[in-house]
Amino acid sequence: MCNSMTSKLHLLSRFRVVLCQPSHPGNIGSTARAMKVMGLHDLKLVNPEKFPDNEANALACGAVDILENAQVCSTLEEALTGCTLAIGLSARKRQLSHRLVSVREAATEARELLLQSADEDSKIALVFGTEMSGLSNAELDRCQLLAMIPTDPGYWSLNLAAAVQVMCYEVRMALLDEQQALPHAGLKATPATNDEVEMFYRHLEQTLTEIGFLNPHSPRRLMQRLRRMYARTALEKEEVNILRGILTLTQHPRPPEE
Amino acid sequence: MCNSMTSKLHLLSRFRVVLCQPSHPGNIGSTARAMKVMGLHDLKLVNPEKFPDNEANALACGAVDILENAQVCSTLEEALTGCTLAIGLSARKRQLSHRLVSVREAATEARELLLQSADEDSKIALVFGTEMSGLSNAELDRCQLLAMIPTDPGYWSLNLAAAVQVMCYEVRMALLDEQQALPHAGLKATPATNDEVEMFYRHLEQTLTEIGFLNPHSPRRLMQRLRRMYARTALEKEEVNILRGILTLTQHPRPPEE
Repeated sequence: MCNSMTSKLHLLSRFRVVLCQPSHPGNIGSTARAMKVMGLHDLKLVNPEKFPDNEANALACGAVDILENAQVCSTLEEALTGCTLAIGLSARKRQLSHRLVSVREAATEARELLLQSADEDSKIALVFGTEMSGLSNAELDRCQLLAMIPTDPGYWSLNLAAAVQVMCYEVRMALLDEQQALPHAGLKATPATNDEVEMFYRHLEQTLTEIGFLNPHSPRRLMQRLRRMYARTALEKEEVNILRGILTLTQHPRPPEE
Repeated sequence: MCNSMTSKLHLLSRFRVVLCQPSHPGNIGSTARAMKVMGLHDLKLVNPEKFPDNEANALACGAVDILENAQVCSTLEEALTGCTLAIGLSARKRQLSHRLVSVREAATEARELLLQSADEDSKIALVFGTEMSGLSNAELDRCQLLAMIPTDPGYWSLNLAAAVQVMCYEVRMALLDEQQALPHAGLKATPATNDEVEMFYRHLEQTLTEIGFLNPHSPRRLMQRLRRMYARTALEKEEVNILRGILTLTQHPRPPEE
């Protein structure tokens, strides 16, 4: 992991999630979980209907710390204290003069703003409206950018916590380097060398001829097709050994004893 | 919206969400909602603990139609019938040799596969494991690609429906993406369906036992290794025919006449 990647992920602490008038405590809990799983921790609640609440805690799972540290505010303005940019979220188009971007673009713009900003304490707010009707026009007026999650035009009823999940996911993706977004799995396989693969093809051709699948007088394009197929796999050394073991026993079967 | 975009969104109908052993009915309902909001409709449930269920219906909101049409299956194999690609979802790294990509890349690959495929009925499955522990190794063996949602290394407890939401969102985004959709040159290959590939694996296992390469009393991980190797190729229909032709002649050789 290189330094530049690490240094971008620490920008996650500069993001704040703001829920305006959430009516279901469960959604507040699910929001905390959705944030924490992506590495965000700063949550502000503007006039929540019920908070704190047991259902919120239950749905937060291991993210109760976020609820415990969540600040309850009486106005959106208060919740935006210290923020240089407030991004309003919407699941549908609004008849407003806000600049409207996709959540992906919004995440990229937010990253660039943080990277260019000299103020190392400034925050960026991700602002979500109420479950029933989203952000009010007055709330939108406090935002500088409107970000949209594309949804089916016939059914755009995106759950609040699901919207938070998608937005936080995009923020994390924007801060991850391409390299890091593409994790590498545990086992490192040793790729077969070109000559090992060529010897396998020779062995295969020989065996196919012996069992009568390949007619050497009229081979058509069979070996070419098989080569193309195996080429796509990028064979590993051990796989070539297995395949050649199969070929050897195809040539000289050793049926299992009963 | 231009035509080319519209024509790619119709590919949403080629995606199927498969939940393996979901234990909470609420998650099934939230999954239905997460799918529908992104325009996906095909849901299969492998051995759900409780289904149908009132809580599922309640959380599905306006997406109860997806639950009504959801098919309950007794095996993952059954749920994958008609699929040419099964993408397994994971929130953490697995010690396996599956090709591992980000969900974003997985969505792009899925789109390209559909655009290149001549078979207009084939489906792509997005396969999710159980809430507690994700996909089992046996379930992963049925997948050809492993897609990871990047999460905080210290807290990767992504809710099941939230994971479905992120994956379906990426699928929708990939189909909306104008820029990346480059025209495809060359022949269209027809990918093999999941059941064709499974029949090949059974034939392979049978043949390897007959020639004495596979000891059914001590199979170790041979079939698993071979499955992963062939999974990387994304076998075409014609290739499966060739491979099975080879197996048939391995069982009953017809040596060439001199």
